[in-house]
Amino acid sequence: MATAGKVIKCKAAVAWEAGKPLSIEEVEVAPPQAMEVRVKILYTALCHTDVYFWEAKGQTPVFPRILGHEAGGIVESVGEGVTELVPGDHVLPVFTGECKDCAHCKSEESNLCDLLRINVDRGVMIGDGQSGFTINGKPIFHFVGTSTFSEYTVIHVGCLAKINPEAPLDKVCVLSCGISTGLGATLNVAKPKKGSTVAIFGLGAVGLAAMEGAKMSGASRIIGVDLNPAKYEQAKKFGCTDFVNPKDHTKPVLVEMTNGGVDRAVECTGHIDAMIAAFECVHDGWGVAVLVGVPHKEAVFKTSPMNLLNERTLKGTFFGNYKPRTDLPEVVEMYMRKELDLEKFITHSVPFSQINTAFDLMLKGEGLRCIMRMDE
Amino acid sequence: MATAGKVIKCKAAVAWEAGKPLSIEEVEVAPPQAMEVRVKILYTALCHTDVYFWEAKGQTPVFPRILGHEAGGIVESVGEGVTELVPGDHVLPVFTGECKDCAHCKSEESNLCDLLRINVDRGVMIGDGQSGFTINGKPIFHFVGTSTFSEYTVIHVGCLAKINPEAPLDKVCVLSCGISTGLGATLNVAKPKKGSTVAIFGLGAVGLAAMEGAKMSGASRIIGVDLNPAKYEQAKKFGCTDFVNPKDHTKPVLVEMTNGGVDRAVECTGHIDAMIAAFECVHDGWGVAVLVGVPHKEAVFKTSPMNLLNERTLKGTFFGNYKPRTDLPEVVEMYMRKELDLEKFITHSVPFSQINTAFDLMLKGEGLRCIMRMDE
Repeated sequence: MATAGKVIKCKAAVAWEAGKPLSIEEVEVAPPQAMEVRVKILYTALCHTDVYFWEAKGQTPVFPRILGHEAGGIVESVGEGVTELVPGDHVLPVFTGECKDCAHCKSEESNLCDLLRINVDRGVMIGDGQSGFTINGKPIFHFVGTSTFSEYTVIHVGCLAKINPEAPLDKVCVLSCGISTGLGATLNVAKPKKGSTVAIFGLGAVGLAAMEGAKMSGASRIIGVDLNPAKYEQAKKFGCTDFVNPKDHTKPVLVEMTNGGVDRAVECTGHIDAMIAAFECVHDGWGVAVLVGVPHKEAVFKTSPMNLLNERTLKGTFFGNYKPRTDLPEVVEMYMRKELDLEKFITHSVPFSQINTAFDLMLKGEGLRCIMRMDE
Repeated sequence: MATAGKVIKCKAAVAWEAGKPLSIEEVEVAPPQAMEVRVKILYTALCHTDVYFWEAKGQTPVFPRILGHEAGGIVESVGEGVTELVPGDHVLPVFTGECKDCAHCKSEESNLCDLLRINVDRGVMIGDGQSGFTINGKPIFHFVGTSTFSEYTVIHVGCLAKINPEAPLDKVCVLSCGISTGLGATLNVAKPKKGSTVAIFGLGAVGLAAMEGAKMSGASRIIGVDLNPAKYEQAKKFGCTDFVNPKDHTKPVLVEMTNGGVDRAVECTGHIDAMIAAFECVHDGWGVAVLVGVPHKEAVFKTSPMNLLNERTLKGTFFGNYKPRTDLPEVVEMYMRKELDLEKFITHSVPFSQINTAFDLMLKGEGLRCIMRMDE
């Protein structure tokens, strides 16, 4: 590769300050250091988490920053010690990693890697503590180790899933974050049985992916719960058979309409009241509630312990319990075998230069995923 | 049988009022009605739940009543429709039942039978709504469908586990309640892996049975947690390797001493603070906490939802998730194969006539189980 070992100048969308439109700038992208990989991003999508940290209302503001974490790309060059990837490999960057060496990576159950677990406050690479992005020599900060709103980006090898090169990156890029999070919450954690009843709280992209997982598992009744009744129509494409708007009810309607409770509930809003409702609507004896949505820092989950003693299970998941490097390639294969439909999650597509349009769509709550084409 | 179909007169320990010593009386025991079985009790043990309802401090008082629910006996006669048991069968009465016909009984996971689930307020048989016990024609109330503090008692067939007739009833009678509850909480619900670290909260009979389950599962480190340091010595016989008295610590010591948390925690005290501590001391990524102890009615379980999202699991169990009729016979076989040691739970034995001694021992916190020999 002609570019290997050299700084690459390319376009990136820089967030200079909280809440202000991103601007496309020419940035310098440093060559990958030890255990790092430089990736040419072909497609990136926008996820709520990007918007959340761009708004920076609840967290330490880290600016100027290159956001972006749902994407697909091709390895341009690799740093010292990287043996699993070579230039030309197709990869999905992931906001959380898998070092394959810590207790979590060695556990069959956990994907909370000690080394590469998501860190939203860090704006630099973990290797040298520096940023790989500069503009005229001044550092521009990273975001969750991925910063995919750039034509080239530098990522720790542990945060890259090597996938089937035949997989269309403009589709499978959505598996980097939200869709895998919802899908895995159902397939890996809630594990509904064939014929069972599943409630999904929150019908955004993550919730609909959780719903898709319920449909794939053979659930016969899938109840969507959302404060916005307009969501029902779209949710039907994902298997939704019943819709409940909590605003329309004062009593725990889900327990009533299911003769004692649902078999599984998956909570994708992050609102504490929805979390509690999701748990308390599962059937005694065998019900399992899975929390996916990220709550407010101060939120407190409260319930009567009798709800637990009556043999209900309460679990939480992070990234659908998928280990990024080990498991994502197989999720891509599910798409390739047509077991998983990703097209219906992709409601918009814009050139990278129109990235602020993607932000507008998400702020208005229009559509599910907007793909940005980096070469336009 | 000469007695079949006739009223049997025999000795029973009657609780005439809350908190007053029981008195041994001659009672009349009616013949079994449809789906009922009359059982000759040979051995009965005393469990905290008997004492709790005898004290009647928190519940509706139901007196006069014949308490008792941990026992072993022999079928004397059966009522209409009973096909699974015949006179002479050895049985363990259980305070909760298994009708084999409801959604819970048909579920592989639940043991919360719709028909025969524990009911502590009901003092009569579910068939005819009458008591099977009288003294001079006046009804004496039942307790949790078992009332084993009587030489003969009438029990619904769904609350009787038919066991190996070779099993010594003076030992396996303790499997009727507490020991199975603790053992099953670990073996059926917490399911620790070989080599794992398990914390047990509360080192009474149930907690020590949970500990026995951890030892049987191959846990390599078993941490006993109790406010009474004198419990450590006895717990060592059940595999306890470390002891923590929460009074000695202000910080969450369990997380510190286990490098991030225990793999499994089993809570057997019923105190809400211990429940929360048991959950919060399990390791992120894979930790499972199981609640066994029955809490105060008003108790509220509170925790940060982030503790769940970091992939911890919180479950509760009832009677160790054992289905009484389906599963208890196999627990008895575990004892017969010497995989399970019951002798160390049996610290005292008295003639039935000295039943108030058993109450005194329990109130003083002395010993684990006191067996009462009905024929003395």
